[in-house]
Amino acid sequence: MTVLNFVTADKTLSSRMPLLNTGTPESKRQEILNYFCQTYDVYDRLFEVLDSDEAWYMKAISLRHPLIFYYGHTATFFVNKLIAARLIENRIDPDIEAMMAIGVDEMSWDDLDDKNYDWPAVEALQAYRQKVRAMVCEFIRGMPLEIPVQWDSAAWLILMGIEHERIHLETSSVLIRQLPLSCLNNNGSWPVCNETGAAPENTLVALNGGKLKLGKSYDDPLYGWDNEYGSQEVDVAPFKASEYLVSNGEFLAFLNAGGYDTERWWTDEGWAWATFAKARHPEFWVRKEDCWHYRTLLEEIDMPWNWPVDTNCHEAQAFCRWKSEVTGKSIQLPTEAEWYCLRGQIDTDLPYWEQAPGNINLEYWSSACPVDQFRNGNFCDIIGNVWQWTRTPIDAYEGFRVHPYYDDFSTPTFDSKHNLIKGGCWISTGNYGIKDSRYAFRRHFFQHAGFRYVESTASDQETINPYETDTLVSQYLEFHFGQEYFGVSNYPKRCAELCHRLMGSRPMTRALDLGCSVGRSSFELARWFQHVDGIDFSARFISAAAELQKNGKIRYFTPTEGELGEFKVASLKVMGLDTTDVNRILFTQGDACNLKPKYCDYDLVFAGNLIDRLTEPLVFLGNIHERIRPGGFLVLTSPYTWLEDYTHKDKWLGGIRENGEALDTYSALKRVLSLHFEEVQPPVDIPFVIRETARKYQHTVAHCTVWRCR
Amino acid sequence: MTVLNFVTADKTLSSRMPLLNTGTPESKRQEILNYFCQTYDVYDRLFEVLDSDEAWYMKAISLRHPLIFYYGHTATFFVNKLIAARLIENRIDPDIEAMMAIGVDEMSWDDLDDKNYDWPAVEALQAYRQKVRAMVCEFIRGMPLEIPVQWDSAAWLILMGIEHERIHLETSSVLIRQLPLSCLNNNGSWPVCNETGAAPENTLVALNGGKLKLGKSYDDPLYGWDNEYGSQEVDVAPFKASEYLVSNGEFLAFLNAGGYDTERWWTDEGWAWATFAKARHPEFWVRKEDCWHYRTLLEEIDMPWNWPVDTNCHEAQAFCRWKSEVTGKSIQLPTEAEWYCLRGQIDTDLPYWEQAPGNINLEYWSSACPVDQFRNGNFCDIIGNVWQWTRTPIDAYEGFRVHPYYDDFSTPTFDSKHNLIKGGCWISTGNYGIKDSRYAFRRHFFQHAGFRYVESTASDQETINPYETDTLVSQYLEFHFGQEYFGVSNYPKRCAELCHRLMGSRPMTRALDLGCSVGRSSFELARWFQHVDGIDFSARFISAAAELQKNGKIRYFTPTEGELGEFKVASLKVMGLDTTDVNRILFTQGDACNLKPKYCDYDLVFAGNLIDRLTEPLVFLGNIHERIRPGGFLVLTSPYTWLEDYTHKDKWLGGIRENGEALDTYSALKRVLSLHFEEVQPPVDIPFVIRETARKYQHTVAHCTVWRCR
Repeated sequence: MTVLNFVTADKTLSSRMPLLNTGTPESKRQEILNYFCQTYDVYDRLFEVLDSDEAWYMKAISLRHPLIFYYGHTATFFVNKLIAARLIENRIDPDIEAMMAIGVDEMSWDDLDDKNYDWPAVEALQAYRQKVRAMVCEFIRGMPLEIPVQWDSAAWLILMGIEHERIHLETSSVLIRQLPLSCLNNNGSWPVCNETGAAPENTLVALNGGKLKLGKSYDDPLYGWDNEYGSQEVDVAPFKASEYLVSNGEFLAFLNAGGYDTERWWTDEGWAWATFAKARHPEFWVRKEDCWHYRTLLEEIDMPWNWPVDTNCHEAQAFCRWKSEVTGKSIQLPTEAEWYCLRGQIDTDLPYWEQAPGNINLEYWSSACPVDQFRNGNFCDIIGNVWQWTRTPIDAYEGFRVHPYYDDFSTPTFDSKHNLIKGGCWISTGNYGIKDSRYAFRRHFFQHAGFRYVESTASDQETINPYETDTLVSQYLEFHFGQEYFGVSNYPKRCAELCHRLMGSRPMTRALDLGCSVGRSSFELARWFQHVDGIDFSARFISAAAELQKNGKIRYFTPTEGELGEFKVASLKVMGLDTTDVNRILFTQGDACNLKPKYCDYDLVFAGNLIDRLTEPLVFLGNIHERIRPGGFLVLTSPYTWLEDYTHKDKWLGGIRENGEALDTYSALKRVLSLHFEEVQPPVDIPFVIRETARKYQHTVAHCTVWRCR
Repeated sequence: MTVLNFVTADKTLSSRMPLLNTGTPESKRQEILNYFCQTYDVYDRLFEVLDSDEAWYMKAISLRHPLIFYYGHTATFFVNKLIAARLIENRIDPDIEAMMAIGVDEMSWDDLDDKNYDWPAVEALQAYRQKVRAMVCEFIRGMPLEIPVQWDSAAWLILMGIEHERIHLETSSVLIRQLPLSCLNNNGSWPVCNETGAAPENTLVALNGGKLKLGKSYDDPLYGWDNEYGSQEVDVAPFKASEYLVSNGEFLAFLNAGGYDTERWWTDEGWAWATFAKARHPEFWVRKEDCWHYRTLLEEIDMPWNWPVDTNCHEAQAFCRWKSEVTGKSIQLPTEAEWYCLRGQIDTDLPYWEQAPGNINLEYWSSACPVDQFRNGNFCDIIGNVWQWTRTPIDAYEGFRVHPYYDDFSTPTFDSKHNLIKGGCWISTGNYGIKDSRYAFRRHFFQHAGFRYVESTASDQETINPYETDTLVSQYLEFHFGQEYFGVSNYPKRCAELCHRLMGSRPMTRALDLGCSVGRSSFELARWFQHVDGIDFSARFISAAAELQKNGKIRYFTPTEGELGEFKVASLKVMGLDTTDVNRILFTQGDACNLKPKYCDYDLVFAGNLIDRLTEPLVFLGNIHERIRPGGFLVLTSPYTWLEDYTHKDKWLGGIRENGEALDTYSALKRVLSLHFEEVQPPVDIPFVIRETARKYQHTVAHCTVWRCR
């Protein structure tokens, strides 16, 4: 067993992250400088295996740039972040820093990248990398530094650049593993495990489950990406997990059972991928003369049947369905929480261990190793060897905040399409190697990743909805559930409270919230009413309200300036609505001017900001009494903003001349409603604010009138 | 001389207006009731002369409805106003009240009215008028009434309806005077003066002029239309006025001199009218067998050469130009103020006199009379006989407020196209007959109106600008010069004050206000800077600013709800800018991205809310230092609202991702400006509010940055 020990020399591949909260500023500065240099060195050493232009400039897979891009990319990252944070003033090479800025890591498998790039020469990039190295070293030596290192400090940004490079150390190694061997140079720096043999029989081992609290606090001593912070409490039911990662040997049974030909074992998305990619076997299996061989980073070796299989998530899930069918058990991939139950068997973490309790952090080999080599309690390979796919799409924890220096790191992945991988692999270093890290990739993506299966009755993760970016829906989510601006209190809440006061001690059986938009007033009315119908003409609004009702939260993007913005979450819990039975509400798309007969017998109808958005306000007002119980209330609020876009001018209730006389809307309401209603209290003005950007708002004063049905 | 004395019977034609501030409520109620009935009776009696369907349904002139309309119109006015004011609930006849609501009095002379109206039968309208009479009488008997009668009281609205009918009593008499005699019935109710003779020689009589204060206060004891209130101080230079109104005899000399054939004596507008109308002589002159006859209300008589000529304003002005040419003097129509100098010769007013000191209020005849019949001091006919055209287009006095019950009575005439007529005529009763009344008609219009001329050096009245109704210009006028909303202080003023503080004791020679919009910050900067260039890309904005600079005020219409709104005036005086030399400002249309070379050497450039509205913000920022003296300041304010409508996205300064990194506009400004500027103080936030309607506002927070040119 070759052990590359991180303490022996600067030139070792493995490493330790600096702790954020220990030591003196000057010792920490030196530590960060060393960590930066060691990372830079390891990254350079990885690219030393590229032996020809072909290796640098060909695309290992169609969805990603050639390696020349990644070689420059991690260096430009430092410059671009430092410029963006206004910590340095001058660029080193504007062309390179523009060209190498953005990767194409997250495309779907059937996207095409047909851009033509005029990549620089390798030598030019090597020179560029040296300049960046010098600049960053100088920057580290001079930057302000306090202990603990804080989220928004310059040192954090440097650590971010380092961890970013460590991510690409691993992902670039995957790309290299996908290049032809002929263009690679096995220089001995990246040694392969030489222990192979037959696969061990896998067994399912019971775990108790229990209450887990996921997520870390903002004063955690280890550097983290923004998605790691916050908290989520999970109840994990007892389950069983496979003792070993699935080995090549174990996976062969699936393949031999016709796994790659049997659609029913695949998800729809997985089968579509397998068909498109013409997948017939795991990515790194090589068929030679009727024998299976195995591709490592720089070699092809005889199939190591007792090593873990590398698969994407689709293949892993197909294996599980096959396994379920074969065993009659509910075999699936673990959830994120189930993996953390397993992780409880290990009581240390990367920066603290003397020697890794798994094949991780480049501490042993530059390849996988047998699945029974590293035992952790009743299991092997709880960390390291290959990553373990979970069935959990990544989502934010409660309390998630976007990191201002890297605001598009996590949020684009909260879309149900990126599943978490856990545990790290042989080349996972730095943050990649720690317990709390949360990386997620598209399910068709290849890392050095395989899987462990569980027997579990845990139901599938709810669909994660991506950030709502529809401008109007987002605007209204912020209006209903977001911040208060200019000291103006929440409008739908205030309206609902007015409705509640109005009801006094009368029965509150049924309420109708017409023009409910994204639903806040419906949620508020459900505090008191046994049934609330929330109706809006816009299906987009209704679907946002329904999502909030179902999941208790919804995410949205709210613009700050130009195309920039903030990622926010609307949460019923934060609104104090977590104790309200929101199932009292039925959200439906509908037309206030043409309601279905079933919407009737209401004790209260609230029509907030509705009448001046109707095509036929007179039709609505002329018929609404039919829906209200005698003595029930109609509450109208509106700024009377009549616009031809919504209502033809000849249908405007007021704000017009009638027979030459000015007719305001309030007068028109009195006239129209007097037949079936009496006005029960003087009108009140209720202001509201809708945010358009961080600096621009609509500030409006609605007129609220209250009517009792005769 | 037949005298129809108003006190003798209800059936007399003349009348007195009730005073607003005397008596008990119950005596006033009775007085108003009598005044209403007497007005209704007189109006009915006028229409009794119509002797055939032709008289009722033919259009006396193409620009006005037939008399059937006016017969119903004054009655519907009561109903429509009472409904609009929510003082009554039910209509009497919705069809009539819609059809008879709006007259066509104010069209240009070449407009065509080709609508087809399905007018009701006379009998139907008579019955309708009786129903309205009964309703109004009942209303008067029951309405709340306090002394004094206030502007917004129910009694005021009744007086408004009465005075409105009295207006139409006179204007309908003009239409009847334009109908063929064959369809009229001279029933003896409308007697003609029988004194005629040769015209007296007219002479010019000197008046001292002096300081006059025009306009009445809101506690004046006589009912007034909104345009009468407020105040205006005028210095009238000494002038001479003709002793008599211009008689038919005096006017004949103009006609015989080729007056109707000689373009140079006419204004352009007057000549265009004369040509279009094929005018050859005064409207009520009739050529018969080579003799001039004269049309009265119901007769044709031999030409009364010593009676006043009836003309429109164009003919009167043409006469004056001819007279000037003939006499070598500056002969013109009097101004409104000059007429009030004349009016000073009479020390009574309609409700107070025992007997009228002129041929007015139907107290003598239903026709004109000789111009030397009624002497008032050194002049005759200062009031009565025929109206006297002035050369003053009607305009609001300082402090003018629109009456809420009749918000389109005055404001549409503040357009330079409506000239004031003064003094009243033989049929002018009620408000038409009082000293403070201010009626104005289009210059081509015929009333029973003629003129008196003056020899005066007073320069012409400035052009009156109509209310600015361009939505955006009005919005910005309110933003710059209107009310403050939500407690947010005036933005361009606050920005200018910031600029002033910045200058400290440095010389303030030249300032540039780029994107000055309607000019407030330029006006404010002119308090301190010797020269201010105000430049905006919008010619409409610049022309509003220039009008304000020239006239000290500008009117605009600001929407409240739908198509309804308020008429407002922006005034430099109200802004405390009347002591500022606004001629220091040069307002010019221009493009901030392509300024002419002459715009240079500034001590200060203020670009308020500009940069995010430029097509090429980078071009502007890259060159602006060339315009600023070394050490001079650049002050930028902006909410950074980048929109593709104004700036292509690839030209946005910030609010974008650059090399994948978020670039906010402030950071971009620092980068762009650092070459030629240094930032001299921390940025500040300055909020502003733009009103869209009475209930809807844009509430924005601009970012203000301050830069010193190296």
